[in-house]
Amino acid sequence: MFTINPVSAEFDTDIQHKIDRKAKPVGALGDIEALAFHIAKVLGKDQPIITQPKMMIFAADHGIAGSGVSIAPSEVTRQMVQTFMAGGAAINVFTRQVGLELEVIDCGIETPFTADSGVIDQRIGAGTEPFNQRAAMSLDTVKLGFKKATDRVEYHHQNGCNLIAIGEMGIGNTSSAAAIMSALSGFPAADCVGRGTGIDPEAFKRKQGLIEDALLLHRNELDHPLKILACLGGFEIVQMTAAILAAAERGMLVVIDGFITTAAAMLAVSINADCRDYMIFSHQSDEKGHYLMLEFLQAKPLLKLGMKLGEGTGAALAFPLIQAAANFYNDMASFDDAGIDL
Amino acid sequence: MFTINPVSAEFDTDIQHKIDRKAKPVGALGDIEALAFHIAKVLGKDQPIITQPKMMIFAADHGIAGSGVSIAPSEVTRQMVQTFMAGGAAINVFTRQVGLELEVIDCGIETPFTADSGVIDQRIGAGTEPFNQRAAMSLDTVKLGFKKATDRVEYHHQNGCNLIAIGEMGIGNTSSAAAIMSALSGFPAADCVGRGTGIDPEAFKRKQGLIEDALLLHRNELDHPLKILACLGGFEIVQMTAAILAAAERGMLVVIDGFITTAAAMLAVSINADCRDYMIFSHQSDEKGHYLMLEFLQAKPLLKLGMKLGEGTGAALAFPLIQAAANFYNDMASFDDAGIDL
Repeated sequence: MFTINPVSAEFDTDIQHKIDRKAKPVGALGDIEALAFHIAKVLGKDQPIITQPKMMIFAADHGIAGSGVSIAPSEVTRQMVQTFMAGGAAINVFTRQVGLELEVIDCGIETPFTADSGVIDQRIGAGTEPFNQRAAMSLDTVKLGFKKATDRVEYHHQNGCNLIAIGEMGIGNTSSAAAIMSALSGFPAADCVGRGTGIDPEAFKRKQGLIEDALLLHRNELDHPLKILACLGGFEIVQMTAAILAAAERGMLVVIDGFITTAAAMLAVSINADCRDYMIFSHQSDEKGHYLMLEFLQAKPLLKLGMKLGEGTGAALAFPLIQAAANFYNDMASFDDAGIDL
Repeated sequence: MFTINPVSAEFDTDIQHKIDRKAKPVGALGDIEALAFHIAKVLGKDQPIITQPKMMIFAADHGIAGSGVSIAPSEVTRQMVQTFMAGGAAINVFTRQVGLELEVIDCGIETPFTADSGVIDQRIGAGTEPFNQRAAMSLDTVKLGFKKATDRVEYHHQNGCNLIAIGEMGIGNTSSAAAIMSALSGFPAADCVGRGTGIDPEAFKRKQGLIEDALLLHRNELDHPLKILACLGGFEIVQMTAAILAAAERGMLVVIDGFITTAAAMLAVSINADCRDYMIFSHQSDEKGHYLMLEFLQAKPLLKLGMKLGEGTGAALAFPLIQAAANFYNDMASFDDAGIDL
């Protein structure tokens, strides 16, 4: 479905040599050096510069939200999108600070926005079906979502963007992400379900039971990532999965955020494992299953700040570290430049 | 010596209320919220804005460097200062990116710079005495260093600066910091001595033995932080200690970097414990003893990136998180602003 080149190892020695000749002891910048190595592999060994970076927030509603698995009702998805467009959410504050351009993509919230809202219309429905009762959507809907997300990434790529950060908004989407995680990884639901943004113990038990029931209901349909998406997905998770794959296909870096975007990353990897090479893992969230997801993907996150908000906030906060790694690689003097002989 | 007001708890409830009414689930931004709380306590509950932030790099040479405890000779201190002034070091790259103005203070490197170099002259010697043979400096020299550093912080304060980040350069200074750590904390030298920026096992054993010998040599003089500084200090550690205390005295935030600046932080706390309230701990370095230092100070660092460079690089990389916390507090919409009723 996506033609992704694994990142070449051809220039690994050159890249490591350039890093090791910087005017500092070998390895002294730790994870920043590893990140610089990664960036140079993806964006080019000579002068890897991040251009036109974008924060893409994918928003949608979830039928499952009617079952009391969240602290907030579905209307809050729309209200938060309005807050994004008004510039008042955490992700607005953080992206403004770090120079990431933000866009909000409606993948299928309950009530659409008008054309003049500034929200990008990539709707593939109006809230999913409750996945504990039936499939969240059809396979055709998944494919439509893949097309829309791919087109958007292609648009950014055409405009010179070589890094996208992925964020999301959708009341109920930790339930969908937990079910997807369990279906893909084989971890029992109990290890995948967390307290989201703060449900009480009773709602937590309900959420866990509901996901166990859903996994049982769809058990004969969970043998392919697209079918997993159709059964358990959210519209925003569908489009994030495709955006990750489309970005990798175009040689772009993809910054993964928290629990829900990492579920999309797992799906993307299960569709085409080569996309893994293009991912940067921004943070480890406070959501219980996120740690296991990162382990599953053998990913080392840049930040651990105990956050559990989503929206792309972890990705935005890690972005200065990503820029710092590129700047280190491009701009720092070598021992030769500095006239130091060690 | 320094008159420091403990940070007031008077507005804690107001500050927490403002944070909890932001348009996100309570606590969802984790450590960023705790940091915002801290910043608002220090800089004011209504609109805590970081102004004229400065990265102060304190540089000096160490007599101990002649004993083979470092991967580099003392000349490298001067060469790195030249690299700072030429804009090519890691700290230049990182401070440029994040909007921290950088200054380099010569506290006593072996050979002085000329007046037109741009290096700030706060010299209190030309390299310390080897502290394994005799006291590194006199008590009068410590006091002179305190005066010079205090004057510099006062100068920044007068110019509207309310946050300083502390960095350092000095070949041999992990040995000095390890000895100071052991003297202040009672941790055995073996727990305090690390491999610096990468010495081999033999040099490591030599370094450990040398520090044990020095602690034995000065054992009757280590009952006061100023005497610890005179016996074991570096000129840059003296001035960093005073800069931290002077900044706290003026109600400024102080961003602590790695192993050596944290030794200065320990000294500052042992001189006046109230300065602890003004400190932000930027990162946990890869230097062995840094973890124990942070535990000793009950400090939770923002970053853990396995770095071991010094120069203030960890503080510079954490600075965007500090700004993000202030921006979150000042600029993010509340539920009331957003019209969301949760």
